[in-house]
Amino acid sequence: MTATDLTLRPFYWRATNLFPEKEIVSRDSDGTTRYDYREFGERTETLAGALSALGVELGDRVGTLGWNTHRHYEAYFAIPLMGAQLHTINPVLPDNHVEFIVNDAGDDILLVDPGEPFETVERLWDRLAGVREVIVMDDELPETDIECVSVYDELVANADSFEWPTLSEDQPAGMCYTSGTTGKPKGVEYNQKMIYSHAMMVATPSAIGIGESDVVMHVVPMYHVNSWELPFSTTMAGAKQVYPGPSPSAETLARLIEEEGVTLTAGVPTVWINLLDYLDNNNADISSLERIVVGGSAAPRGVMRRFKEEYDVVIEHAWGMTETMSIGSVSRSKSHMQDWDRDERFEKRTKQGLLSPGMEMKIVDEGGNELPWDGESVGELYVRGPTVIGGYYNRPQANEASFDGDWLQTGDIATVDEDGYLELVDRSKDIIKSGGEWISSIELENKLMEHDEILEAAVIAVPHDRWRERPVACVERKQQSTLQEDAVLEFLEKAYPKWWLPDKVIFIEGVPKTATGKFDKKQLRDEYENTDLPQTPGKDDETGDND
Amino acid sequence: MTATDLTLRPFYWRATNLFPEKEIVSRDSDGTTRYDYREFGERTETLAGALSALGVELGDRVGTLGWNTHRHYEAYFAIPLMGAQLHTINPVLPDNHVEFIVNDAGDDILLVDPGEPFETVERLWDRLAGVREVIVMDDELPETDIECVSVYDELVANADSFEWPTLSEDQPAGMCYTSGTTGKPKGVEYNQKMIYSHAMMVATPSAIGIGESDVVMHVVPMYHVNSWELPFSTTMAGAKQVYPGPSPSAETLARLIEEEGVTLTAGVPTVWINLLDYLDNNNADISSLERIVVGGSAAPRGVMRRFKEEYDVVIEHAWGMTETMSIGSVSRSKSHMQDWDRDERFEKRTKQGLLSPGMEMKIVDEGGNELPWDGESVGELYVRGPTVIGGYYNRPQANEASFDGDWLQTGDIATVDEDGYLELVDRSKDIIKSGGEWISSIELENKLMEHDEILEAAVIAVPHDRWRERPVACVERKQQSTLQEDAVLEFLEKAYPKWWLPDKVIFIEGVPKTATGKFDKKQLRDEYENTDLPQTPGKDDETGDND
Repeated sequence: MTATDLTLRPFYWRATNLFPEKEIVSRDSDGTTRYDYREFGERTETLAGALSALGVELGDRVGTLGWNTHRHYEAYFAIPLMGAQLHTINPVLPDNHVEFIVNDAGDDILLVDPGEPFETVERLWDRLAGVREVIVMDDELPETDIECVSVYDELVANADSFEWPTLSEDQPAGMCYTSGTTGKPKGVEYNQKMIYSHAMMVATPSAIGIGESDVVMHVVPMYHVNSWELPFSTTMAGAKQVYPGPSPSAETLARLIEEEGVTLTAGVPTVWINLLDYLDNNNADISSLERIVVGGSAAPRGVMRRFKEEYDVVIEHAWGMTETMSIGSVSRSKSHMQDWDRDERFEKRTKQGLLSPGMEMKIVDEGGNELPWDGESVGELYVRGPTVIGGYYNRPQANEASFDGDWLQTGDIATVDEDGYLELVDRSKDIIKSGGEWISSIELENKLMEHDEILEAAVIAVPHDRWRERPVACVERKQQSTLQEDAVLEFLEKAYPKWWLPDKVIFIEGVPKTATGKFDKKQLRDEYENTDLPQTPGKDDETGDND
Repeated sequence: MTATDLTLRPFYWRATNLFPEKEIVSRDSDGTTRYDYREFGERTETLAGALSALGVELGDRVGTLGWNTHRHYEAYFAIPLMGAQLHTINPVLPDNHVEFIVNDAGDDILLVDPGEPFETVERLWDRLAGVREVIVMDDELPETDIECVSVYDELVANADSFEWPTLSEDQPAGMCYTSGTTGKPKGVEYNQKMIYSHAMMVATPSAIGIGESDVVMHVVPMYHVNSWELPFSTTMAGAKQVYPGPSPSAETLARLIEEEGVTLTAGVPTVWINLLDYLDNNNADISSLERIVVGGSAAPRGVMRRFKEEYDVVIEHAWGMTETMSIGSVSRSKSHMQDWDRDERFEKRTKQGLLSPGMEMKIVDEGGNELPWDGESVGELYVRGPTVIGGYYNRPQANEASFDGDWLQTGDIATVDEDGYLELVDRSKDIIKSGGEWISSIELENKLMEHDEILEAAVIAVPHDRWRERPVACVERKQQSTLQEDAVLEFLEKAYPKWWLPDKVIFIEGVPKTATGKFDKKQLRDEYENTDLPQTPGKDDETGDND
């Protein structure tokens, strides 16, 4: 019926032809690069020419280990537009993960940022047998023993321009690996159609809403579900883009917002907590900023309130996974809620929100039965839709555990309220199963982090003879605080039933984090699972109706 | 890579599950129906049950001849969601067109509004051999000799609910016929994926931009490229919808805007010119209205200005065709144009604007060579993209004339300026080819309609021995005007070179219109092509460089 497939080509066409003078700003160790979509297009076409000259063909996988820069952005389009597959790899993963991922994907060319990412590749070089060429995303060659290394900027300056072929929408275009807190990382593939559909969906006001007048700063790492896929929608819209480079500090982010007039950005809560701290102690004008999309974990309420009240910036919670191409729900008030009082509206917005268009969801109990949307019933979230994967790369066993027909079993434990707002209660592996009831570790953590003297807190399940599992809180106090266990428990007791209270509060120096910045509860569990627990009340001791 | 195809089911799911209480308002001859997405869902599911009981199966075509009402809207979802094909037919076409269209499509069930549309079917009944059942979209049976007639509301009240099957995205879901001002109407088919992709695109701020807080009044007839496909995006967004029923007067529209808080609507210019007239003479509060998307032909500048200045309503020009599922470009200022002065911005917005995301375009000369984007070079517009058809239904000859590979040759003559704004100069069949140069009939018409004493004007090409064709203006004066030919020409002479001036001005009573409300120039040409023309200057008499 239509002669044309859903591919990235028209997004690229639109940005380079309709908005050739719109700016792209990129920061790296050398300073700031500033160019427009016209030049972006020229460089992208010669990058593809260079990759083609290096033998990259339809269906080949090209890996990247890089930060958020304009070169990495060029690769985001050059690789899929030539019919190859963009495989973004997290350069801060442990070496054995990087090794596994590159070899599992069979990448034959790697685009690598100088510094740490290149050093990682050097260390692993003998074990990356399939890699034919390493392209350093820089303007000069680093000193190295690896022979087949070339310099990105030289390739781009000297190659012939490449003419985009007509591709099938089924052509694999992207690949990411899940962070793999349990077991080996699992590969996830996106074809042209999925990236097209997700970008279009993200751009609608029903999801994030991105228009030409936005200035989007990409803070989510480009190796983390392709910066939540935002570079694709942003290009489609022809919006100005800001790439803040490797490990941007809060100061860098504040400066970029002020100087470039950033209107929209996104990232995990920690980044924005640090920005708030920076703004408390420094002068910066962030008045252009309208919205921050926050995912990964929930932003503390105090942070949401302060951004709104002091800076008129709305924090929008979002939910998503590598398996859903990131963004799968966004929290925003419905129009009729404008009449609600502020606190009620705010409560709603702290949830993970409304499912994005194109998707469907349900929550189910352990027997697979669908649960009501009452804001109380807790079950595993199942989702399906054209932006949800249908299976992992070469992992039949994982597929069996994670899919029920066309439904993805997300492993996220959630409620849905009467208004259709999704709220994550926990990851299924983090929920604490105590005396036949579930205790949300995330809810306890968020409550703990509302305490004035607590900086961060992670709550883990510790095995328990009688109750199966009991919560233990690992708490990092703020400097100078002398907070003690009984005060912590007293604080929680105001909000939760006794059987929810942690059996122990352990004061630690910094919550360990995964490579993507999430709390690494696996490490905490390994360390504290043999903690001696006092005899404590379980659900039945309070209600008398169990056991 | 994904297990789920692009189909309408998630749009339906989203509206009925996430926005069950959002209103749908529908006006028909009996008054106003008001319900919500929950009830819409229930009725849609039993309508599908009723159609299934009548034998409608996967791939069957169901025709509709109806106005803009909630029943027609229910059919918009019930038919495609069950895997059948929604074939919307223009009930005000001449009988022989309706007959041809129903038989060409092979519709076996018709949903028909009472009154005129039903009378048309009655008149044609003996010649619609394939139609098994006529469902009258009403709550009671009209008196009729046709035996196989049933009543919509009874079917919906009594049928079992239908469970939506899992469909392929390639499943045909929609069908429309082009209005066919030349030759037989041509069928155009849309599959599930095309409707999904177009709806998503329309919802982005890069095209129209529709969000949950919008209140959308569907004025474009539902038989006219499915009301420009807007019911699909609106449902996806969960926005409130208003269906104004058969032939809504300006008064009805004004009242609905005021009472329902309409924010967004769309339609051909005449509708909004009439609304402006009504508002001049009556009190109505249209302050909720933010935008009117105008297509079909260009809105006169005076009308655009008055809406903006007097009512703070922005008229957004759009371009599209049945072959592009309507909306293919929308005109809006780019963000950097905010610094331009008002008139410059306004000039930009009078064009047809920026191509919508997902599409690509070029303009080519008669030799098929691509022309520059300089705002001067005039050529035929070619477009391609996943929302553009790849061929007509069963019309190989038309396909040969209208496609160049995956490019649709639109038959629209256009320029594109340095900023990428598309401007339609004419339909290729309406452009006046005079002395080797082209004269835009549309441009002359628009200019004429800026004259205070001119109500409507159509400019046609009349054959000419020496110059091949020359323009003739058919002008309808406003009441009481005694405007004469020389004054008309004098008015045009201020803006155009002498050789552009019509060779004759004919004063007529009302410009004839096609069934879709466009000027019927074919009828005017038939009537006036033998008009005696005086000896007039051609291009070369003025410039001396031709012939």
